Amino acid sequence: MTAPTKVTPISGFPEFLPAERLLELHFLDVIREVFELHGFAPLETRAVEPVERLLGKGGDADKEIYGVTRLAGDDSGRDAALGLHFDLTVPFARYVLENAGRLSFPFRRYQIQKVWRGERPQEGRFREFTQADIDVVDVGELAPHFEAEMPLVIAEAFARLPIGEFRIQVNNRRIPEGFYLGIGLSDVAGTLRIVDKLDKIGPEKVTALLLEAGATTEQAAQALALAAISSTDLSFVDAVRALGVGHPTLEEGLDALAAVITVGMEQAPGVLVADLRIARGLDYYTGTVYETQLVGSESWGSVCSGGRYDSLASDGRTTYPGVGISIGLTRLVHLLVARRGLTASRSTPAAVLVAVTDEESRDASRRVATALRARGIPCEVAPSAARFGKQIRYADRRGIPFVWFPGAGEGGDQVKDIRSGDQVDADATTWECPDADLRPGVVTR
Amino acid sequence: MTAPTKVTPISGFPEFLPAERLLELHFLDVIREVFELHGFAPLETRAVEPVERLLGKGGDADKEIYGVTRLAGDDSGRDAALGLHFDLTVPFARYVLENAGRLSFPFRRYQIQKVWRGERPQEGRFREFTQADIDVVDVGELAPHFEAEMPLVIAEAFARLPIGEFRIQVNNRRIPEGFYLGIGLSDVAGTLRIVDKLDKIGPEKVTALLLEAGATTEQAAQALALAAISSTDLSFVDAVRALGVGHPTLEEGLDALAAVITVGMEQAPGVLVADLRIARGLDYYTGTVYETQLVGSESWGSVCSGGRYDSLASDGRTTYPGVGISIGLTRLVHLLVARRGLTASRSTPAAVLVAVTDEESRDASRRVATALRARGIPCEVAPSAARFGKQIRYADRRGIPFVWFPGAGEGGDQVKDIRSGDQVDADATTWECPDADLRPGVVTR
Repeated sequence: MTAPTKVTPISGFPEFLPAERLLELHFLDVIREVFELHGFAPLETRAVEPVERLLGKGGDADKEIYGVTRLAGDDSGRDAALGLHFDLTVPFARYVLENAGRLSFPFRRYQIQKVWRGERPQEGRFREFTQADIDVVDVGELAPHFEAEMPLVIAEAFARLPIGEFRIQVNNRRIPEGFYLGIGLSDVAGTLRIVDKLDKIGPEKVTALLLEAGATTEQAAQALALAAISSTDLSFVDAVRALGVGHPTLEEGLDALAAVITVGMEQAPGVLVADLRIARGLDYYTGTVYETQLVGSESWGSVCSGGRYDSLASDGRTTYPGVGISIGLTRLVHLLVARRGLTASRSTPAAVLVAVTDEESRDASRRVATALRARGIPCEVAPSAARFGKQIRYADRRGIPFVWFPGAGEGGDQVKDIRSGDQVDADATTWECPDADLRPGVVTR
Repeated sequence: MTAPTKVTPISGFPEFLPAERLLELHFLDVIREVFELHGFAPLETRAVEPVERLLGKGGDADKEIYGVTRLAGDDSGRDAALGLHFDLTVPFARYVLENAGRLSFPFRRYQIQKVWRGERPQEGRFREFTQADIDVVDVGELAPHFEAEMPLVIAEAFARLPIGEFRIQVNNRRIPEGFYLGIGLSDVAGTLRIVDKLDKIGPEKVTALLLEAGATTEQAAQALALAAISSTDLSFVDAVRALGVGHPTLEEGLDALAAVITVGMEQAPGVLVADLRIARGLDYYTGTVYETQLVGSESWGSVCSGGRYDSLASDGRTTYPGVGISIGLTRLVHLLVARRGLTASRSTPAAVLVAVTDEESRDASRRVATALRARGIPCEVAPSAARFGKQIRYADRRGIPFVWFPGAGEGGDQVKDIRSGDQVDADATTWECPDADLRPGVVTR
């Protein structure tokens, strides 16, 4: 097990130190708890899919796929070529088709897993990262109320996380579609792709691109006017109507978005924003689309996105419409660590270090630890019977708040809070570890 | 997102249905909780390592490595060739070297992740599976008490899991080493490899192989006599001494194993067995070695194994000795599902389905759900305002025990236990969900 090669990080494959991983686990636990409170069933799919299933999903996705092959072996050719999944939606669609007869629909599932994309690595953009997804999928038809539910689940999870204020921006694809058709722009997808660049290149360049694509000055101005509309209440509807464009698809979209915002206003006031510039890059969204920004960190881009697709999966006869949303967890946590200095208050789950007076009495320390653990208090027995000053430093270096001294008191043990220096008599079968210290907290460096 | 190819499972890449995944999650939660109670810090390493770091670990490992390459791209050749890790020990050793300056030693970590091995798939043997590892690593020297601690952590986790009785078999590599040297068999590794086949091929064939390798009839008989010794107490020491072989390495080994068994007798009576036939295939173990069998399912082989290595990692100047143990989680859960019929009592985390009287009152149902969730009760709002019989069947099909009817009582709501049929008045802000129903239980099909 010696090291044959130089040990260096691999660009785009991030790893955390223990305190940072504890922070990430806190995020994972909160997200999972909220997903489960909302009745999403856990699912995990294999990391690999047949390459042909991964190809052709649009954009640069094909180039970014990692192929997987055995270095040596005699069965190459017998199996289909495999690749690592680059999201959790494609594998979920395949899983639904594969297990349709054994699932109950509408099927609600959450999935928290690593995905891999061979992108050019940069801060907050990785080649290996964790996504946390929820989706609801049904057979044939999917009730529209699920489109209102998705952002509310995210709002509940995010409200429990130390990320400050956030906004979930919601749009409905039918609004720009109907609007563009209403003003005579028939290349809806092309127009959407150009308007989607608004945040990156600004309105002048978007106008130039629209004109280049054949729009009139008037049409370009109208498309930009639509994209400028946003509201946390239903006033966006009147703002669109004031532009004087009529089209049945536009009306459908406005009604659908108004329904989502109405539920949001009741359940998560101020969090949902109808924002008519949100388009999402992926071609398969057909209804509501979501993006999420942290207030004050808008430059990080969206940390949670998704939408509705009329055909999440299809086997040729049956179509499975779905709606889903995905938290870019690795991206979110890495940016919080790097830019806001978040980390865990200690580098171990242990709340208590049980000191060892001498190696002969290690058994006594072990019994204290067993008693504390039986009551749910994470602890560790000191690795050596060094002098107590050294044992306290051992705890301090890891951020462990309490050191337990067996037999230190008159006829019993004592426990020291090494932050305050307070040392009191204590019994391992009754001592109450303060709630705030039972698990590592979130702190700012 | 339609399906371009036939949907078929990939041999060796298992996937669970939701109820089975809930069972697996229960195992993961218990194991993680016990690891954290013992102060192991969580860690996750990237899925890939440079291929040269993965090669040369002995056995068939090289042939089983999966290489990872971008399907298309312009930076091939710039990066080292990458492969998926096949265990969590090699990546952990690399992580320790890479981060030695930022870790506090002795460093205790747990790691629960997928690993990949291109083995021939068979029942309980997969190409993608989850391992749950704990290791303690120190700089230069590692205190022997950690070798006693590892199996106790596993014993505590396994005692909380629905797996029945189990035995952790413990040996110390120095016992057979010193014994073989003491009887004049100098090829210790070769002899160990042959004796390790005892369970598979039986004593006659092992004797034949030993004779073939140059042992005398007397030496072969002695080697088999040693391997036959086992005890849950310290009597194995006298049984070895009765064979009349003396060697200082043998004495060291007996002392070390006696120390581990002594702690085991106090902390987990009857669970640890000194079993002198246990060798473990991997060459890098140098002290205590562990295997674990479920009583009544010995044919499954070991479900949790590990040992001590004097050099987990080394950068040429500093050596990091370690001791660790690894639960083969996917293997364990799959066998329990397939052979003992274990599964979860429902296919969703939801304990309650909140019925919807008509679509106009969906808001009222949503408010009930919000109140239940605020009190930690997982629930789901019915997908449609179908007649109540159909909504109850929806819950029944998923194993959801309770259906909530807003406004069904005199001036309030009612909740029905659909197993017993009992329906009572209830208030979402005070109703107590029975503890046994709050999370899915483990049941036998």
